[in-house]
Amino acid sequence: MLRSCTAGLRSIWALRGRREGAPRLSMDLQPARRLFSTEKVIHKDWALPNPSWSKDLKLLFDQFMKKCEDGSWERLPSYKRTSTQESEDFKTYFLDPKLVEEERLSQAQLFTRGFEDGLGFEYVIFKNNDEKRTVCLFQGGPYLQGVPGLLHGGAMATMIDIALGSCTGGAVMTANLNINFKRSTSWNQDCQEKYQ
Amino acid sequence: MLRSCTAGLRSIWALRGRREGAPRLSMDLQPARRLFSTEKVIHKDWALPNPSWSKDLKLLFDQFMKKCEDGSWERLPSYKRTSTQESEDFKTYFLDPKLVEEERLSQAQLFTRGFEDGLGFEYVIFKNNDEKRTVCLFQGGPYLQGVPGLLHGGAMATMIDIALGSCTGGAVMTANLNINFKRSTSWNQDCQEKYQ
Repeated sequence: MLRSCTAGLRSIWALRGRREGAPRLSMDLQPARRLFSTEKVIHKDWALPNPSWSKDLKLLFDQFMKKCEDGSWERLPSYKRTSTQESEDFKTYFLDPKLVEEERLSQAQLFTRGFEDGLGFEYVIFKNNDEKRTVCLFQGGPYLQGVPGLLHGGAMATMIDIALGSCTGGAVMTANLNINFKRSTSWNQDCQEKYQ
Repeated sequence: MLRSCTAGLRSIWALRGRREGAPRLSMDLQPARRLFSTEKVIHKDWALPNPSWSKDLKLLFDQFMKKCEDGSWERLPSYKRTSTQESEDFKTYFLDPKLVEEERLSQAQLFTRGFEDGLGFEYVIFKNNDEKRTVCLFQGGPYLQGVPGLLHGGAMATMIDIALGSCTGGAVMTANLNINFKRSTSWNQDCQEKYQ
Protein backbone atom coordinates (compact mmCIF):
# COMPACT_ATOMS: atom_id res chain seq x y z
CA MET A 1 0.00 0.00 0.00
CA LEU A 2 1.20 3.45 -0.76
CA ARG A 3 1.85 5.11 2.53
CA SER A 4 2.67 8.67 1.72
CA CYS A 5 3.90 10.92 -1.03
CA THR A 6 5.87 14.02 -1.66
CA ALA A 7 7.57 14.22 1.73
CA GLY A 8 9.87 17.18 1.86
CA LEU A 9 9.60 17.90 -1.84
CA ARG A 10 7.97 20.37 -4.13
CA SER A 11 5.84 17.63 -5.56
CA ILE A 12 2.14 17.88 -4.91
CA TRP A 13 0.63 14.65 -6.11
CA ALA A 14 -0.86 12.38 -3.51
CA LEU A 15 -1.64 8.92 -4.79
CA ARG A 16 -2.88 5.68 -3.45
CA GLY A 17 -2.17 2.40 -5.18
CA ARG A 18 -3.22 -1.17 -4.53
CA ARG A 19 -1.66 -4.26 -6.01
CA GLU A 20 -3.31 -7.63 -6.01
CA GLY A 21 -2.36 -11.08 -7.17
CA ALA A 22 1.31 -11.14 -7.96
CA PRO A 23 1.60 -14.26 -10.12
CA ARG A 24 3.70 -17.34 -9.73
CA LEU A 25 7.07 -16.19 -10.91
CA SER A 26 10.32 -16.25 -9.04
CA MET A 27 12.59 -15.02 -11.79
CA ASP A 28 15.06 -12.40 -10.72
CA LEU A 29 15.58 -9.32 -12.87
CA GLN A 30 18.97 -8.40 -11.50
CA PRO A 31 21.86 -8.15 -13.97
CA ALA A 32 22.12 -11.06 -16.35
CA ARG A 33 23.50 -14.19 -14.81
CA ARG A 34 24.75 -15.84 -17.98
CA LEU A 35 26.26 -13.82 -20.77
CA PHE A 36 27.45 -14.83 -24.21
CA SER A 37 29.64 -12.85 -26.55
CA THR A 38 26.86 -12.63 -29.11
CA GLU A 39 24.39 -11.13 -26.67
CA LYS A 40 23.31 -7.62 -27.47
CA VAL A 41 22.67 -6.47 -23.97
CA ILE A 42 22.81 -2.87 -22.85
CA HIS A 43 24.30 -3.08 -19.42
CA LYS A 44 24.23 0.55 -18.49
CA ASP A 45 22.46 1.02 -15.19
CA TRP A 46 19.96 3.89 -15.67
CA ALA A 47 18.97 4.22 -12.01
CA LEU A 48 21.79 6.66 -11.39
CA PRO A 49 21.93 10.47 -11.49
CA ASN A 50 22.48 12.23 -14.81
CA PRO A 51 22.83 15.96 -15.54
CA SER A 52 19.06 16.36 -15.97
CA TRP A 53 18.36 15.46 -12.34
CA SER A 54 17.21 18.34 -10.18
CA LYS A 55 19.06 19.37 -7.06
CA ASP A 56 16.26 17.96 -4.91
CA LEU A 57 16.34 14.61 -6.66
CA LYS A 58 20.12 14.34 -6.31
CA LEU A 59 19.89 15.30 -2.65
CA LEU A 60 17.33 12.58 -1.96
CA PHE A 61 19.39 10.10 -3.97
CA ASP A 62 22.43 10.87 -1.82
CA GLN A 63 20.39 10.47 1.36
CA PHE A 64 19.19 7.04 0.35
CA MET A 65 22.64 5.98 -0.86
CA LYS A 66 23.84 6.79 2.64
CA LYS A 67 21.16 4.48 4.02
CA CYS A 68 22.48 1.74 1.76
CA GLU A 69 25.88 1.77 3.42
CA ASP A 70 24.85 -0.44 6.35
CA GLY A 71 22.99 -2.85 4.06
CA SER A 72 19.51 -2.03 5.39
CA TRP A 73 18.55 -0.44 2.07
CA GLU A 74 19.57 -1.29 -1.46
CA ARG A 75 19.37 0.64 -4.69
CA LEU A 76 17.71 -1.37 -7.45
CA PRO A 77 19.55 -1.17 -10.78
CA SER A 78 17.53 -0.60 -13.96
CA TYR A 79 18.38 -1.59 -17.53
CA LYS A 80 16.91 -0.79 -20.91
CA ARG A 81 17.06 -4.36 -22.04
CA THR A 82 17.06 -7.78 -20.50
CA SER A 83 19.62 -10.37 -21.47
CA THR A 84 18.92 -12.95 -24.12
CA GLN A 85 18.89 -15.57 -21.41
CA GLU A 86 16.18 -13.78 -19.47
CA SER A 87 14.17 -13.31 -22.65
CA GLU A 88 14.50 -17.01 -23.35
CA ASP A 89 13.35 -17.85 -19.84
CA PHE A 90 10.32 -15.62 -20.16
CA LYS A 91 9.45 -17.07 -23.52
CA THR A 92 9.58 -20.51 -22.03
CA TYR A 93 7.29 -19.58 -19.19
CA PHE A 94 4.89 -17.09 -20.70
CA LEU A 95 4.90 -16.50 -24.39
CA ASP A 96 3.19 -18.17 -27.23
CA PRO A 97 6.14 -18.57 -29.66
CA LYS A 98 3.82 -17.72 -32.56
CA LEU A 99 3.39 -14.23 -31.10
CA VAL A 100 7.06 -13.46 -30.68
CA GLU A 101 9.15 -12.46 -33.64
CA GLU A 102 12.80 -12.97 -32.77
CA GLU A 103 13.96 -9.92 -34.67
CA ARG A 104 11.39 -7.65 -33.04
CA LEU A 105 12.25 -9.01 -29.60
CA SER A 106 15.81 -7.78 -30.03
CA GLN A 107 14.51 -4.22 -30.54
CA ALA A 108 12.59 -4.20 -27.30
CA GLN A 109 13.30 -1.78 -24.48
CA LEU A 110 11.89 -1.30 -21.05
CA PHE A 111 9.01 1.17 -21.43
CA THR A 112 10.31 3.59 -18.82
CA ARG A 113 13.88 3.67 -20.16
CA GLY A 114 13.14 4.48 -23.79
CA PHE A 115 13.57 8.25 -23.50
CA GLU A 116 16.73 10.29 -23.62
CA ASP A 117 18.13 11.76 -20.42
CA GLY A 118 15.75 14.21 -18.83
CA LEU A 119 12.93 13.89 -21.36
CA GLY A 120 10.99 11.01 -19.87
CA PHE A 121 11.12 8.92 -16.72
CA GLU A 122 14.01 9.74 -14.41
CA TYR A 123 13.77 7.51 -11.38
CA VAL A 124 15.47 5.26 -8.93
CA ILE A 125 13.98 2.74 -6.53
CA PHE A 126 15.39 1.88 -3.13
CA LYS A 127 14.29 -1.16 -1.20
CA ASN A 128 14.40 -2.18 2.45
CA ASN A 129 13.98 -5.93 2.60
CA ASP A 130 13.59 -6.18 6.37
CA GLU A 131 10.87 -3.57 6.51
CA LYS A 132 9.41 -4.72 3.18
CA ARG A 133 9.40 -1.15 1.90
CA THR A 134 10.38 0.52 -1.34
CA VAL A 135 10.86 4.20 -2.07
CA CYS A 136 10.73 5.54 -5.60
CA LEU A 137 12.34 8.89 -6.39
CA PHE A 138 10.93 10.18 -9.66
CA GLN A 139 11.28 13.22 -11.86
CA GLY A 140 9.05 13.45 -14.93
CA GLY A 141 10.31 15.00 -18.16
CA PRO A 142 8.54 17.07 -20.83
CA TYR A 143 7.79 14.03 -22.99
CA LEU A 144 5.42 12.72 -20.33
CA GLN A 145 2.90 15.50 -20.78
CA GLY A 146 -0.85 15.02 -20.55
CA VAL A 147 -2.73 18.31 -20.47
CA PRO A 148 -0.25 21.15 -21.06
CA GLY A 149 2.27 21.52 -18.26
CA LEU A 150 1.06 18.48 -16.35
CA LEU A 151 2.27 14.91 -16.11
CA HIS A 152 0.11 12.39 -17.91
CA GLY A 153 -1.88 10.18 -15.54
CA GLY A 154 -0.68 7.15 -17.48
CA ALA A 155 2.95 8.08 -16.82
CA MET A 156 2.22 8.36 -13.11
CA ALA A 157 0.32 5.06 -13.19
CA THR A 158 3.35 3.48 -14.86
CA MET A 159 5.69 4.67 -12.12
CA ILE A 160 3.32 3.44 -9.42
CA ASP A 161 3.08 0.08 -11.16
CA ILE A 162 6.86 -0.23 -11.31
CA ALA A 163 7.47 0.93 -7.76
CA LEU A 164 4.81 -1.40 -6.36
CA GLY A 165 6.18 -4.26 -8.43
CA SER A 166 9.57 -3.69 -6.85
CA CYS A 167 8.13 -4.55 -3.43
CA THR A 168 8.18 -8.20 -4.45
CA GLY A 169 11.27 -10.33 -4.72
CA GLY A 170 11.33 -10.76 -8.49
CA ALA A 171 9.52 -9.94 -11.71
CA VAL A 172 5.76 -9.73 -11.41
CA MET A 173 2.77 -8.86 -13.52
CA THR A 174 0.06 -6.61 -12.18
CA ALA A 175 -3.41 -8.08 -11.77
CA ASN A 176 -5.17 -4.98 -10.44
CA LEU A 177 -4.09 -1.36 -10.47
CA ASN A 178 -6.35 1.02 -8.58
CA ILE A 179 -5.18 4.62 -8.32
CA ASN A 180 -6.85 7.65 -6.81
CA PHE A 181 -5.21 10.74 -8.25
CA LYS A 182 -5.42 13.36 -5.53
CA ARG A 183 -3.84 16.32 -7.27
CA SER A 184 -2.15 17.07 -10.56
CA THR A 185 1.59 17.57 -10.84
CA SER A 186 3.75 19.37 -13.34
CA TRP A 187 6.23 17.30 -15.31
CA ASN A 188 9.09 19.50 -14.12
CA GLN A 189 8.58 18.45 -10.52
CA ASP A 190 9.96 15.59 -8.47
CA CYS A 191 7.97 12.97 -6.65
CA GLN A 192 8.79 10.64 -3.85
CA GLU A 193 6.59 7.63 -3.42
CA LYS A 194 6.83 5.19 -0.55
CA TYR A 195 5.30 1.75 -0.65
CA GLN A 196 5.10 -1.24 1.56
CA MET B 1 -17.16 1.34 -18.70
CA LEU B 2 -15.13 -0.92 -20.88
CA ARG B 3 -17.56 -3.19 -22.64
CA SER B 4 -15.41 -5.65 -24.47
CA CYS B 5 -11.99 -6.16 -25.92
CA THR B 6 -10.15 -7.85 -28.69
CA ALA B 7 -13.09 -8.47 -30.99
CA GLY B 8 -11.95 -10.28 -34.08
CA LEU B 9 -8.29 -9.71 -33.37
CA ARG B 10 -5.29 -11.62 -32.21
CA SER B 11 -5.16 -9.53 -29.09
CA ILE B 12 -5.77 -11.33 -25.85
CA TRP B 13 -5.98 -8.71 -23.16
CA ALA B 14 -9.30 -8.22 -21.47
CA LEU B 15 -9.49 -5.11 -19.35
CA ARG B 16 -12.01 -3.23 -17.31
CA GLY B 17 -11.62 0.45 -16.53
CA ARG B 18 -13.61 2.92 -14.45
CA ARG B 19 -13.33 6.64 -14.59
CA GLU B 20 -14.67 8.94 -11.92
CA GLY B 21 -14.85 12.65 -11.43
CA ALA B 22 -14.09 14.39 -14.68
CA PRO B 23 -13.28 17.91 -13.55
CA ARG B 24 -14.83 21.22 -14.51
CA LEU B 25 -13.14 21.89 -17.80
CA SER B 26 -14.79 22.51 -21.07
CA MET B 27 -11.69 23.22 -23.14
CA ASP B 28 -11.60 21.46 -26.43
CA LEU B 29 -8.42 19.72 -27.56
CA GLN B 30 -9.28 19.68 -31.21
CA PRO B 31 -6.90 21.46 -33.63
CA ALA B 32 -5.82 24.88 -32.48
CA ARG B 33 -8.43 27.55 -32.99
CA ARG B 34 -6.14 30.57 -32.97
CA LEU B 35 -2.72 30.45 -34.55
CA PHE B 36 0.08 32.99 -34.64
CA SER B 37 3.10 32.98 -36.91
CA THR B 38 5.44 32.62 -33.95
CA GLU B 39 3.74 29.49 -32.65
CA LYS B 40 5.86 26.39 -32.72
CA VAL B 41 3.06 23.91 -33.12
CA ILE B 42 3.43 20.52 -34.73
CA HIS B 43 0.22 20.09 -36.64
CA LYS B 44 0.77 16.62 -37.99
CA ASP B 45 -2.13 14.40 -37.09
CA TRP B 46 -0.67 11.16 -35.68
CA ALA B 47 -3.92 9.23 -35.52
CA LEU B 48 -3.48 8.00 -39.07
CA PRO B 49 -1.91 4.84 -40.49
CA ASN B 50 1.84 4.70 -41.02
CA PRO B 51 3.96 1.88 -42.50
CA SER B 52 4.40 0.25 -39.09
CA TRP B 53 0.70 -0.50 -38.75
CA SER B 54 -0.21 -4.17 -39.04
CA LYS B 55 -2.64 -5.44 -41.66
CA ASP B 56 -5.25 -6.05 -38.98
CA LEU B 57 -4.93 -2.54 -37.58
CA LYS B 58 -5.24 -0.97 -41.04
CA LEU B 59 -8.26 -3.15 -41.80
CA LEU B 60 -10.01 -2.03 -38.64
CA PHE B 61 -9.06 1.57 -39.32
CA ASP B 62 -10.65 1.33 -42.77
CA GLN B 63 -13.80 -0.23 -41.30
CA PHE B 64 -14.23 2.62 -38.84
CA MET B 65 -13.43 5.26 -41.45
CA LYS B 66 -16.30 3.80 -43.45
CA LYS B 67 -18.55 4.29 -40.43
CA CYS B 68 -17.48 7.92 -40.32
CA GLU B 69 -18.89 8.62 -43.76
CA ASP B 70 -22.48 9.10 -42.56
CA GLY B 71 -21.35 11.23 -39.63
CA SER B 72 -22.36 8.75 -36.93
CA TRP B 73 -18.72 8.17 -35.99
CA GLU B 74 -15.78 10.54 -36.03
CA ARG B 75 -12.04 9.92 -35.94
CA LEU B 76 -10.34 11.95 -33.23
CA PRO B 77 -7.13 13.62 -34.42
CA SER B 78 -4.04 13.46 -32.20
CA TYR B 79 -1.13 15.89 -32.01
CA LYS B 80 2.27 15.80 -30.34
CA ARG B 81 1.94 19.31 -29.06
CA THR B 82 -0.81 21.68 -28.16
CA SER B 83 -0.88 25.24 -29.47
CA THR B 84 0.58 28.11 -27.49
CA GLN B 85 -2.94 29.40 -27.00
CA GLU B 86 -4.10 26.16 -25.44
CA SER B 87 -1.03 26.06 -23.22
CA GLU B 88 -1.79 29.61 -22.11
CA ASP B 89 -5.37 28.67 -21.34
CA PHE B 90 -4.31 25.70 -19.28
CA LYS B 91 -1.78 27.75 -17.38
CA THR B 92 -4.47 30.25 -16.56
CA TYR B 93 -6.81 27.59 -15.26
CA PHE B 94 -4.55 25.04 -13.66
CA LEU B 95 -0.91 25.80 -13.24
CA ASP B 96 1.03 27.55 -10.59
CA PRO B 97 3.21 29.87 -12.74
CA LYS B 98 6.16 29.23 -10.42
CA LEU B 99 6.13 25.58 -11.46
CA VAL B 100 6.12 26.21 -15.21
CA GLU B 101 9.29 27.18 -16.97
CA GLU B 102 8.40 28.73 -20.29
CA GLU B 103 11.36 27.21 -22.10
CA ARG B 104 10.66 23.73 -20.80
CA LEU B 105 6.99 24.04 -21.70
CA SER B 106 7.94 24.50 -25.34
CA GLN B 107 9.76 21.13 -25.27
CA ALA B 108 6.71 19.27 -24.06
CA GLN B 109 5.08 16.49 -26.05
CA LEU B 110 2.05 14.35 -25.50
CA PHE B 111 3.27 11.27 -23.63
CA THR B 112 1.84 8.79 -26.12
CA ARG B 113 3.22 10.56 -29.21
CA GLY B 114 6.85 10.84 -28.16
CA PHE B 115 8.07 7.68 -29.90
CA GLU B 116 9.05 7.20 -33.51
CA ASP B 117 6.69 5.38 -35.86
CA GLY B 118 6.11 1.80 -34.80
CA LEU B 119 8.22 1.87 -31.63
CA GLY B 120 5.69 3.07 -29.11
CA PHE B 121 1.99 3.82 -29.06
CA GLU B 122 0.25 3.44 -32.42
CA TYR B 123 -3.41 4.19 -31.96
CA VAL B 124 -6.49 5.93 -33.19
CA ILE B 125 -9.71 6.69 -31.36
CA PHE B 126 -13.14 6.78 -32.96
CA LYS B 127 -16.12 8.30 -31.24
CA ASN B 128 -19.85 7.94 -31.63
CA ASN B 129 -21.46 10.94 -29.98
CA ASP B 130 -25.05 9.70 -30.19
CA GLU B 131 -24.24 6.36 -28.61
CA LYS B 132 -21.68 7.96 -26.27
CA ARG B 133 -19.11 5.35 -27.27
CA THR B 134 -15.45 5.41 -28.17
CA VAL B 135 -13.35 2.70 -29.75
CA CYS B 136 -9.58 2.72 -29.47
CA LEU B 137 -7.52 0.74 -31.97
CA PHE B 138 -4.06 0.23 -30.55
CA GLN B 139 -0.83 -1.48 -31.52
CA GLY B 140 2.00 -1.47 -29.01
CA GLY B 141 5.61 -1.18 -30.16
CA PRO B 142 8.82 -2.72 -28.79
CA TYR B 143 9.61 0.34 -26.67
CA LEU B 144 6.59 -0.39 -24.48
CA GLN B 145 8.01 -3.57 -23.05
CA GLY B 146 7.50 -4.69 -19.47
CA VAL B 147 8.63 -8.25 -18.87
CA PRO B 148 10.32 -9.54 -22.03
CA GLY B 149 7.96 -9.85 -24.97
CA LEU B 150 4.99 -8.36 -23.14
CA LEU B 151 3.45 -4.92 -23.06
CA HIS B 152 4.08 -2.98 -19.89
CA GLY B 153 0.99 -2.68 -17.71
CA GLY B 154 1.65 1.06 -17.43
CA ALA B 155 1.50 1.42 -21.21
CA MET B 156 -1.83 -0.37 -21.28
CA ALA B 157 -3.08 1.76 -18.38
CA THR B 158 -2.07 4.84 -20.33
CA MET B 159 -4.06 3.79 -23.38
CA ILE B 160 -7.09 3.00 -21.25
CA ASP B 161 -6.80 6.38 -19.57
CA ILE B 162 -6.67 8.16 -22.92
CA ALA B 163 -9.47 6.16 -24.51
CA LEU B 164 -11.75 6.65 -21.50
CA GLY B 165 -10.90 10.34 -21.42
CA SER B 166 -12.02 10.61 -25.02
CA CYS B 167 -15.55 9.62 -23.99
CA THR B 168 -15.99 13.11 -22.59
CA GLY B 169 -16.47 16.21 -24.68
CA GLY B 170 -13.16 17.93 -23.90
CA ALA B 171 -9.93 17.65 -21.97
CA VAL B 172 -10.24 15.91 -18.62
CA MET B 173 -8.04 14.76 -15.77
CA THR B 174 -8.51 11.31 -14.29
CA ALA B 175 -9.57 11.09 -10.65
CA ASN B 176 -9.67 7.30 -10.33
CA LEU B 177 -8.20 4.63 -12.56
CA ASN B 178 -9.10 1.07 -11.64
CA ILE B 179 -7.93 -1.66 -14.00
CA ASN B 180 -8.21 -5.41 -13.76
CA PHE B 181 -5.63 -6.93 -16.08
CA LYS B 182 -7.16 -10.19 -17.27
CA ARG B 183 -4.35 -11.51 -19.46
CA SER B 184 -0.98 -10.39 -20.69
CA THR B 185 -0.40 -9.30 -24.27
CA SER B 186 2.66 -9.17 -26.45
CA TRP B 187 3.75 -5.77 -27.71
CA ASN B 188 3.57 -6.97 -31.29
CA GLN B 189 -0.15 -7.48 -31.08
CA ASP B 190 -3.09 -5.21 -31.71
CA CYS B 191 -5.84 -4.35 -29.29
CA GLN B 192 -9.28 -3.01 -29.75
CA GLU B 193 -10.90 -1.42 -26.76
CA LYS B 194 -14.47 -0.21 -26.65
CA TYR B 195 -15.75 2.19 -24.04
CA GLN B 196 -18.94 3.91 -23.20
